[in-house]
Amino acid sequence: MSGSVTVIGLGPGDAGTLTPDASSALDGATDLVGYSTYLDMVPDHVAATRHGSDNREEAARAAAALDLAADGRRVVVVSSGDPGVFAMAAAVLEQLDAPEPPERWSDVTVEVLPGVTAAQATAARAGAPLGHDFAVISLSDNLKPWPVIERRLDAVAAADLVIALYNPASRARPHQLSEAVDVLLRHRAPDTVVVLGRDVGRPGETIRIVSLAEVPDAGVDMRTVVIVGSSQTRRLTTSDGSVRAYTPRRYPGVDEA
Amino acid sequence: MSGSVTVIGLGPGDAGTLTPDASSALDGATDLVGYSTYLDMVPDHVAATRHGSDNREEAARAAAALDLAADGRRVVVVSSGDPGVFAMAAAVLEQLDAPEPPERWSDVTVEVLPGVTAAQATAARAGAPLGHDFAVISLSDNLKPWPVIERRLDAVAAADLVIALYNPASRARPHQLSEAVDVLLRHRAPDTVVVLGRDVGRPGETIRIVSLAEVPDAGVDMRTVVIVGSSQTRRLTTSDGSVRAYTPRRYPGVDEA
Repeated sequence: MSGSVTVIGLGPGDAGTLTPDASSALDGATDLVGYSTYLDMVPDHVAATRHGSDNREEAARAAAALDLAADGRRVVVVSSGDPGVFAMAAAVLEQLDAPEPPERWSDVTVEVLPGVTAAQATAARAGAPLGHDFAVISLSDNLKPWPVIERRLDAVAAADLVIALYNPASRARPHQLSEAVDVLLRHRAPDTVVVLGRDVGRPGETIRIVSLAEVPDAGVDMRTVVIVGSSQTRRLTTSDGSVRAYTPRRYPGVDEA
Repeated sequence: MSGSVTVIGLGPGDAGTLTPDASSALDGATDLVGYSTYLDMVPDHVAATRHGSDNREEAARAAAALDLAADGRRVVVVSSGDPGVFAMAAAVLEQLDAPEPPERWSDVTVEVLPGVTAAQATAARAGAPLGHDFAVISLSDNLKPWPVIERRLDAVAAADLVIALYNPASRARPHQLSEAVDVLLRHRAPDTVVVLGRDVGRPGETIRIVSLAEVPDAGVDMRTVVIVGSSQTRRLTTSDGSVRAYTPRRYPGVDEA
């Protein structure tokens, strides 16, 4: 009897954003497969055997999950956020789409369950910066060339979309965020509203609202999601002194339509 | 004593994607404010008074929620999907950011809770089409000029992002989707993989995987989310005959890096 692979996302980290479907999948699993840091975020009461691995081993991890399922196990592959956004769902499908996938995988049931992303959690805490058209772009050049990233940033900035940046910085790529900001500054004002969400939904969460010009020196690290506003994104100080950011639903030029 | 406004998203519709935080907010509410169609999706056991209104009345609805909260009520504003994505969170913040908001709103606590969007739910059911950089664009020209929409579609298509299209068609705008497809075809092949998710997470849900050239005649309506793949998005037929779509994590040009 063949088993199943269910690819889930934990959401940003707190139990309050873990969907009931993902929670049920965890409770019914015999095996959990994932990056060790994410497996550590799975609630303690989940009894399944945990197979943790290093980051950047997505392909091997996906194959291991399919192998376990072929042995009849109910495997849950654990991502953070949404498993469909820069995470394990694509890695599992890539394995199934390989030129000659192992025959034993052919009866494995594969399901993907969506989750709340870090960008959405950051946006909610800050207000509503993603309230109008937006793009989601990873600055990591592990899997795509930097010129592709630059071209994409230039295009979405020129088209005045809000931009959520994932993987904004790392020790291996300390200059990429400032290079990205330089590209954005071709089309956006230096005082463009930017939201920095670090460890949102996890202990020590911080939300900062800064200007685009301040981003390169803002101490952004890999645990930070950067949401760069459009020309329309606004900063609002509420009566209790807290600062919010939002992008209005209306874009200039239609009032007279 | 002032009350609170909590802006939540129900997710795509099924109880399995309603987050525990949103569920708790509903259980603790005295009043629910929202588009009547969405209020009808709130679980029956939620006892709060329901204030339903028509679609397109977002500003009045947001003001009504703040008024109720100023009277000390615990108000939950109900969107579908994520309230931060083309939904009520921005509408509430716009009210607070008006030139002279009513003094009585000043002590109202406002919180936004993220949710799973229709695009994410559609992507999960189809596989992982949002597995790489993507954009989310509404085709509705109620609140922005059509030339802005065209420019955005052209830019993100040229930059080869996956594109999730909201509000793809309506009786008032029957030709916009085909005009949008014409713009995308400047940069994408006619056989580009497209996912059509209709009523995902609701009764009668359908997922179809078609080509970009087939979209204009595919019977897309306002209850459909359209996810247009990048040049890299692939179609995969699994051993049980079901078709999936996914966008690989790797973009061409880095294998030799």
